[in-house]
Amino acid sequence: MPRKFLIAAGLTLGLAFAGPALADDRAAIAKVLADSSAGWTRGDLDAFMASYEKAPQINYVSGGKVIQGFDAIRATYAPRFADPKAMPPLSTEIVDFDPLGKDYAAVVGRFHLKMPDGTDATGLFSLIFHKTKDGWRIVSDHSS
Amino acid sequence: MPRKFLIAAGLTLGLAFAGPALADDRAAIAKVLADSSAGWTRGDLDAFMASYEKAPQINYVSGGKVIQGFDAIRATYAPRFADPKAMPPLSTEIVDFDPLGKDYAAVVGRFHLKMPDGTDATGLFSLIFHKTKDGWRIVSDHSS
Repeated sequence: MPRKFLIAAGLTLGLAFAGPALADDRAAIAKVLADSSAGWTRGDLDAFMASYEKAPQINYVSGGKVIQGFDAIRATYAPRFADPKAMPPLSTEIVDFDPLGKDYAAVVGRFHLKMPDGTDATGLFSLIFHKTKDGWRIVSDHSS
Repeated sequence: MPRKFLIAAGLTLGLAFAGPALADDRAAIAKVLADSSAGWTRGDLDAFMASYEKAPQINYVSGGKVIQGFDAIRATYAPRFADPKAMPPLSTEIVDFDPLGKDYAAVVGRFHLKMPDGTDATGLFSLIFHKTKDGWRIVSDHSS
């Protein structure tokens, strides 16, 4: 076969395999985010936190502070779940998705909090996801 | 040799190899950041931008906006270099460094801008670095 054809065939095969895998990873990560938002909205702190990897070296950066480790991040969020029936509904959308090698992926997204006065409190987050044995989990979160 | 000793020897050897490689990557990334800050401080936009990968899919998230691609990020920064002799000196420090597989690394850091009135304008950034043939380059930047 001509070399060009071989390269084209290789590329096509490569894309055929990479394409669905990428789409699967993005869909799996979208589900982790949707499950986490649903947990927040019903006031379930553990369901919300299930999107983060249970590890001491993960980061949450927000409001000029760096919070390090799953337990510290959970403790930071806990007061906002004091009245689980009064959570402003949370939703998120993925703005950009980029694989970082095989086991990591970067997500830029937007969050929306439907506040009691009807306003939309919105902001952006940059997340790094890690593919663990339990699925994709956040290891770095910068929200602003 | 007893199995335990073999495991211990393997771990020691593993750490001996992983340790310096990690330290080298962190030092290389610290140099990219220091060179970029020095470029900013002397009003050299291209030297400042040399820390970013020249690619269309890189991200810069700041001030509620997502800027995508090297050229768009450069265009966003360009107005701040209008008077290269009036740049507030920039310095950065690495707060946390985490490898993400072999070719990517996550950095959380703090920036300081020494403003003309003597105040310190400071904030946090979360960066993803990619190991390219030209060295480590930023592919994602969230500053707040």
